[in-house]
Amino acid sequence: MADSGKKRLVEAITPMDEDFAKWYTDIVKKAELIDYSSVRGCMYIRPYGYAIWENIQRILDGMFKETGHENVYLPMLIPESLLNKEKEHVEGFAPEVAWVTMGGSEKLEERLCVRPTSETLFCELYSHIIHSYRDLPKLYNQWCSVVRWEKTTRPFLRTLEFLWQEGHTMHETAEEAKEETERMLNIYAEFCEKYLAIPVIKGRKTDKEKFAGAEATYSIEALMHDGKALQSGTSHYFGDGFARAFGIQFTGRDNTLQYPYQTSWGVTTRLIGAIIMVHGDDSGLVLPPKIAPTQLIIIPVAAHKPGVVDKAKELEARLKKEFRVKADYSDNSPGWKYAEYEMKGVPLRLEIGPRDIENNRCILVRRDNREKIEVSLDELEAKVRETLDDVQQSLFDKAKERRDNMTYTCTDLNTFIETAQNKPGFIKAMWCGDVECENKLKELAGVTSRNIPFEQEHLSDTCVCCGKPAKHMVYWGKAY
Amino acid sequence: MADSGKKRLVEAITPMDEDFAKWYTDIVKKAELIDYSSVRGCMYIRPYGYAIWENIQRILDGMFKETGHENVYLPMLIPESLLNKEKEHVEGFAPEVAWVTMGGSEKLEERLCVRPTSETLFCELYSHIIHSYRDLPKLYNQWCSVVRWEKTTRPFLRTLEFLWQEGHTMHETAEEAKEETERMLNIYAEFCEKYLAIPVIKGRKTDKEKFAGAEATYSIEALMHDGKALQSGTSHYFGDGFARAFGIQFTGRDNTLQYPYQTSWGVTTRLIGAIIMVHGDDSGLVLPPKIAPTQLIIIPVAAHKPGVVDKAKELEARLKKEFRVKADYSDNSPGWKYAEYEMKGVPLRLEIGPRDIENNRCILVRRDNREKIEVSLDELEAKVRETLDDVQQSLFDKAKERRDNMTYTCTDLNTFIETAQNKPGFIKAMWCGDVECENKLKELAGVTSRNIPFEQEHLSDTCVCCGKPAKHMVYWGKAY
Repeated sequence: MADSGKKRLVEAITPMDEDFAKWYTDIVKKAELIDYSSVRGCMYIRPYGYAIWENIQRILDGMFKETGHENVYLPMLIPESLLNKEKEHVEGFAPEVAWVTMGGSEKLEERLCVRPTSETLFCELYSHIIHSYRDLPKLYNQWCSVVRWEKTTRPFLRTLEFLWQEGHTMHETAEEAKEETERMLNIYAEFCEKYLAIPVIKGRKTDKEKFAGAEATYSIEALMHDGKALQSGTSHYFGDGFARAFGIQFTGRDNTLQYPYQTSWGVTTRLIGAIIMVHGDDSGLVLPPKIAPTQLIIIPVAAHKPGVVDKAKELEARLKKEFRVKADYSDNSPGWKYAEYEMKGVPLRLEIGPRDIENNRCILVRRDNREKIEVSLDELEAKVRETLDDVQQSLFDKAKERRDNMTYTCTDLNTFIETAQNKPGFIKAMWCGDVECENKLKELAGVTSRNIPFEQEHLSDTCVCCGKPAKHMVYWGKAY
Repeated sequence: MADSGKKRLVEAITPMDEDFAKWYTDIVKKAELIDYSSVRGCMYIRPYGYAIWENIQRILDGMFKETGHENVYLPMLIPESLLNKEKEHVEGFAPEVAWVTMGGSEKLEERLCVRPTSETLFCELYSHIIHSYRDLPKLYNQWCSVVRWEKTTRPFLRTLEFLWQEGHTMHETAEEAKEETERMLNIYAEFCEKYLAIPVIKGRKTDKEKFAGAEATYSIEALMHDGKALQSGTSHYFGDGFARAFGIQFTGRDNTLQYPYQTSWGVTTRLIGAIIMVHGDDSGLVLPPKIAPTQLIIIPVAAHKPGVVDKAKELEARLKKEFRVKADYSDNSPGWKYAEYEMKGVPLRLEIGPRDIENNRCILVRRDNREKIEVSLDELEAKVRETLDDVQQSLFDKAKERRDNMTYTCTDLNTFIETAQNKPGFIKAMWCGDVECENKLKELAGVTSRNIPFEQEHLSDTCVCCGKPAKHMVYWGKAY
């Protein structure tokens, strides 16, 4: 019984090595993270998927507030004339926005786009409320959804509508704005590494890859199981470009009128895609304990035997005081349940049966490496705490080791092309700074620049593409 | 100095009795709850306004989860064909939706509306995931914004886009669905009374006033300072109408295919409008402590004198352990600060100056009745706790007393019309159940039925309008 139940679920997933894309979509569906909708390119985020997002929100929101940020809510519709105010920005976004042209049965005089991002609205608001240097900095953030009219979509990774947060800040000096840009990138990196157990590369995007209207874009880049990169968070420095376009001015300390300096930064539900593709395996999702909606699942074994369910409920009540715990008392077989919660990536499983009760013990089973641990009920909390911490750390270490093993150094063009074509992963290589070389590497090797990492290494003196003097070391790769 | 600062702010509000609508918009602007945007009918919710919404969300979300509900996220765009599936529903909403007709530069084959509410999407999702009675109940909720193309708008009360939560549940039996409808109405009523200090009337809407597509709509109705009613939350019972339209079927306990029974329920940012119009006064906002972003503001007096700021910071650190506290160390005068935090409705002000420090005391000033309380620093926490509780209760009592004083009983048509025209407030009167009488009372007296309260009273035997036998007692009034 147990085995047949297990097989039924496990067989349903395409193995990762057979078809990575199919493996991914199997997991998002079978772990009940999402369901497909009849709205093209949009998904239904189901309770289990949304609970992960709620944990992401709760933790990040706390980090934002600790650093002085406040939440606001701005309209989802942007008049075309407002979007048009900053030239580079509108050129970047206009081709991919959804346009509202009718209200009820009336044709609108001016069409409105569903926000693809809200720089323009924040600028309008800031133009109303920033008058003096005393009004600065303004450190606002918004949790909402945005729409971008993408051609091809994939759950969490690229959807027409997605959930995100967008921070938009205004500062008295360029220096302060640059510090903020970096501060938020560091918060994203800390969040990914500490909570999602995903190691990231922090760095600056090349001009070709930066955000429409930004002076500089910074990103954190993570490596997925299949060797493709995922941009997992971005932070932009705008200088005073938008402020000038929107006429935002303040009276400075020296009594002159000045333009403030601006940043924006965001992460999205993509992060859930990253969790799947960094930690998942052929049995399903593997969730880091710090972000898992359920950290431990209790499964009574031989539940019909006297005392088993009572004991399970007693342990549930004990553990709920400290951990996010669920118990499954349904009449499915234990094996069926094991497979179900493995699919859902619950970090720890607690098995308790008649013989365990006799011996005042239970069995803990780790989702990540399937290790079974016999634990005395007297030290249950301590052992669960310790094991969850260890799972969290192991997931990070394993992901980092894999990323490092999949990161290659290339110093000449032929090796670069050969590596890009045969070895999935990051390539570190020197670059002269010319967009022509970026275009050429894309064309010849199929990779794009991921970022110019803050932690530079001197791999050689010359650009891997053109042989001219190198300016930076760059991470290259195929990307989602 | 103090007085001139105070005047500057206070003079800026239109007194409530002079022009209630202007008083309201003055407060939302000057308490920095919102700012107007160039998007017609939409507003910018500023940090102070959004913090109130965050408190509402946090508390309600906790109440929803305690009663077994889970959060999800569904698309903001609904294909026209999906909206059209339930006839009454589309007739109710189609005239007031915003239509997306272009994606990028491409005209869409099928236009999409920005969700005005999400029954249709929830039904599509439920049709995919409900197969057996074991899958029921499904108790989902969503926090999001919706768009309704309103002609005239007012901040928080009626805007093109507004924030809300929408619960959508599916049940095995009609009985269970009806219980859910009532359970959620009770949660809304409890929330309004306990947290917002707003007394409400629970009851059923007449057929004329019910939600498009519902079998029954229940509401909670509150009375504003100007005697107008505000529908503050609704809960709908749908029967199996949508389930039939969307083909949602499950295998029942008896192995037959059945249609599930549905509810939906929601509250919106309107609640912030209710807080303003129930508790506010001519000095600005008055916030109930349980919902106030800042429960206590510390203002050092003669802050340049040695030791004052240090002492204020010491008290701030002490009080922050238990309360939502801020302190204002800016160089504005105390009087200016008093006016500012009165405008923002902070429930308690703590003043501390050199003489207070000498005497190991401080002064607490209540926002609601301006009472000054001298408090020994040794019992500060206890006194703050007690005073906040008392403010919370006083606000509710005062609002209830006012509502009761503004509620009139009418048993004949002439008195009804005269009362409606001259006495702002609720009218209780008997009704025969015919929509013709509802229409006539609207025409003659300018009021609509608010709801048929659960707590019925027998005021007379006959309908106040037509004199035929009465079926129900109804609350009538002018409404926002």
